[in-house]
Amino acid sequence: MITSATNGRIKWVVSLMEKARMRRKEHKYVIEGVRMFLEAPADAITEVYVSETFLKRAGVKGSQEEACMQRIKMPHAEVLDVSDEVFRKLSDTVNPQGILAVMRMTETVPEQMLAGKRAPLFMILENLQDPGNLGTVLRTAEGAGCDGIILSRDCVDLYNPKVIRSTMGAIFRVPFFYTDNLTETMEKLKEKGVCIYAAALEERAAAYDTYSYKEATAFLVGNEGNGLTQEAIDAAGKTCYIPMEGKVESLNASVAAAILMYEAYRQRRSEITTI
Amino acid sequence: MITSATNGRIKWVVSLMEKARMRRKEHKYVIEGVRMFLEAPADAITEVYVSETFLKRAGVKGSQEEACMQRIKMPHAEVLDVSDEVFRKLSDTVNPQGILAVMRMTETVPEQMLAGKRAPLFMILENLQDPGNLGTVLRTAEGAGCDGIILSRDCVDLYNPKVIRSTMGAIFRVPFFYTDNLTETMEKLKEKGVCIYAAALEERAAAYDTYSYKEATAFLVGNEGNGLTQEAIDAAGKTCYIPMEGKVESLNASVAAAILMYEAYRQRRSEITTI
Repeated sequence: MITSATNGRIKWVVSLMEKARMRRKEHKYVIEGVRMFLEAPADAITEVYVSETFLKRAGVKGSQEEACMQRIKMPHAEVLDVSDEVFRKLSDTVNPQGILAVMRMTETVPEQMLAGKRAPLFMILENLQDPGNLGTVLRTAEGAGCDGIILSRDCVDLYNPKVIRSTMGAIFRVPFFYTDNLTETMEKLKEKGVCIYAAALEERAAAYDTYSYKEATAFLVGNEGNGLTQEAIDAAGKTCYIPMEGKVESLNASVAAAILMYEAYRQRRSEITTI
Repeated sequence: MITSATNGRIKWVVSLMEKARMRRKEHKYVIEGVRMFLEAPADAITEVYVSETFLKRAGVKGSQEEACMQRIKMPHAEVLDVSDEVFRKLSDTVNPQGILAVMRMTETVPEQMLAGKRAPLFMILENLQDPGNLGTVLRTAEGAGCDGIILSRDCVDLYNPKVIRSTMGAIFRVPFFYTDNLTETMEKLKEKGVCIYAAALEERAAAYDTYSYKEATAFLVGNEGNGLTQEAIDAAGKTCYIPMEGKVESLNASVAAAILMYEAYRQRRSEITTI
């Protein structure tokens, strides 16, 4: 059992949780909690850290902890016991559940997201900065049947523990891709027949609910404070705006993304034509 | 100029910012920052605290600080200068802008929200706990043309500095009311002809986009983790659900509220009949 917080492995896990740079270098990230562990794809788990108390609870038949331990019996994942005190130092939460896993990163290129889809739906994010917003976008995207998320490199890191937590497991199920060249990636999507709508308050934009989203569609949403860059708006080709009453200047980025994705999903589920 | 953080007034402001109980007792709350100050209704401001640096900047013609100082010249509000060091202690933000105001609370009873409206739109919240979610609901509600928010007493305090900040000024413009008896308040709304839809994953619920929301409408959304109580669902009378793909069990509360309010707003703006 690891009983010291200065143990090399422990320090390594903490740095994976705290530093995006470290995650990128190691190509690994950390998930925490019973629910996340049970939902995580088994083949991406490389190490599991469990606390003393967790192991005690796992002795109780029918407990969630027991379910986790059943899952842990994978030949490829290493299991490490740590003292409760060390686990508290590892944990990113106030009330740690006593289980944490190191995962191998998996990215899906846009070509894979498109494969076999008649009318795919994408969300494209430029320079989104708030971890909670990004997590919420992923969770909503799964709900709306979105086929993938494309992120500009300057977006907040999706493997940030705060983002992971707020995805409620969607991180394992919604494909995503960080692009170093957003304009180029959008051009490729357009070549494949995807219509890209930039959410912008431009004069030439039409209200979001005047378009039909029944064919291949992507929505482009920008930074919380500054919105989209002109370059991204131009690359998208089409623009749409979400009407607003009162003195509201903009909606929260995850709310705007939700309204757009759910309008596409509503149209796809129904026979209503809005044009 | 106040130069000590142990000054009685300073301690009082800090307690107003930190404690909901104190805010309720004094019937006052605190707003911070240039933008919030400029948007705040003048007659509700009772005291303004400005920092040294703020006062220096206010000497620059055309500065935002000057605009604030113009506004400060109200006979009913007391202006207090504080040292930069004391202001940093007062402030709830990492980079304080140097202005903060104490405001008188104003609540709007549901009868006032209904007054003169042909087809009002309301958002009802039961036991919402996350400050960011509540702030986002208010901001979205203003955008969707919502006439008022009704909150059960166990919701997070709307005058919490985190909530205020995330409303982006909507706190001054969207009427709201905390009720001690949610069931009774809903009964009264129904008597006035308001149709209340509880967002619930019940079997008897229909998809949210199969109803018409062109008449007086209210949506009821519940706690982030546990959803609505059965009592609240029963009191609402009607139920609706937001369809979800994948393994998503629920949407973020502020996202669910946004999808519902914007569907109502969409129907009200267009001539489409969804039934």
